[in-house]
Amino acid sequence: MTPSETIRIFTKTLESLEKCMDKAGEYAKSRSFEVDVLAHARLAPDQFDFVRQVQSACDQAKYAAAYLGGKPAPSHPDTEQSFAELRERIRKCTGFLATVQEKDFAGAEERKVAPPWLGGRWLRGGDYLAHVAVPNFFFHVTIAYAILRHNGVPLGKMDYIGSLPTREG
Amino acid sequence: MTPSETIRIFTKTLESLEKCMDKAGEYAKSRSFEVDVLAHARLAPDQFDFVRQVQSACDQAKYAAAYLGGKPAPSHPDTEQSFAELRERIRKCTGFLATVQEKDFAGAEERKVAPPWLGGRWLRGGDYLAHVAVPNFFFHVTIAYAILRHNGVPLGKMDYIGSLPTREG
Repeated sequence: MTPSETIRIFTKTLESLEKCMDKAGEYAKSRSFEVDVLAHARLAPDQFDFVRQVQSACDQAKYAAAYLGGKPAPSHPDTEQSFAELRERIRKCTGFLATVQEKDFAGAEERKVAPPWLGGRWLRGGDYLAHVAVPNFFFHVTIAYAILRHNGVPLGKMDYIGSLPTREG
Repeated sequence: MTPSETIRIFTKTLESLEKCMDKAGEYAKSRSFEVDVLAHARLAPDQFDFVRQVQSACDQAKYAAAYLGGKPAPSHPDTEQSFAELRERIRKCTGFLATVQEKDFAGAEERKVAPPWLGGRWLRGGDYLAHVAVPNFFFHVTIAYAILRHNGVPLGKMDYIGSLPTREG
């Protein structure tokens, strides 16, 4: 998985997450509740709620594209409270991901990635993707999915995986 | 992330999962319950339980190594019922992963991967990793983590992420 393939999978998976949110909206309607009550649902009292899981998934994708693509990460303040606002957040994120081109990733795996939370230390770009961005990104999307699933939204794993580029012959 | 880097991250993450299971064991002891009651816990009545999440994570890693490394996948029947048996399953899996060498992955990204469930169609090796193995693997590990977390086991995301190969200077 090259850096640009990784970013494409992040985009695809965020689009799948939005489709899971569509299903949450339909489920809420069918049960006559407001979908935004799920925005603050969580699986444990001291774990992030749905809103922060989606924000965190977006940020993992955004920073991966920025650090590996050698571009400044745009600021996306964590102000969302509703499903409608989270959809906007996802689109801002995927919009940014789309601006990072194949050529921007040249040499990305050897680039020094030094996020502030590493306190002056750094990771090789390839290690940042493998040890930080990929596991964290899928973690937050999966927890967001699990929060919806735990609350009765009829989701299956293929809603998360999405379509596969299969070939025949 | 090359195929061999991906398999190394799968091994690391399965080791992290075992450490999460250690914490579940300590928690169970502190609360005087049998840790194996968590083996069949789940987040939704129609979702896989903890045992099947761990088995599925192992299988995603095993098949990725087998298909990409061009080796037959060993048979690991889904017979586990307890945490002790799941630890054995994880070790059988990581033991197999360790047998697939860097050189076995030569040309892996272009290899035809045709698992039976694709019904005769196939995926490029690189697409299999990016669209199937990686998202599914992290999904099942995260759900396993979330089942423990939801049941009160004191876990944080770094238990899932594990150590990072940071550098200084």
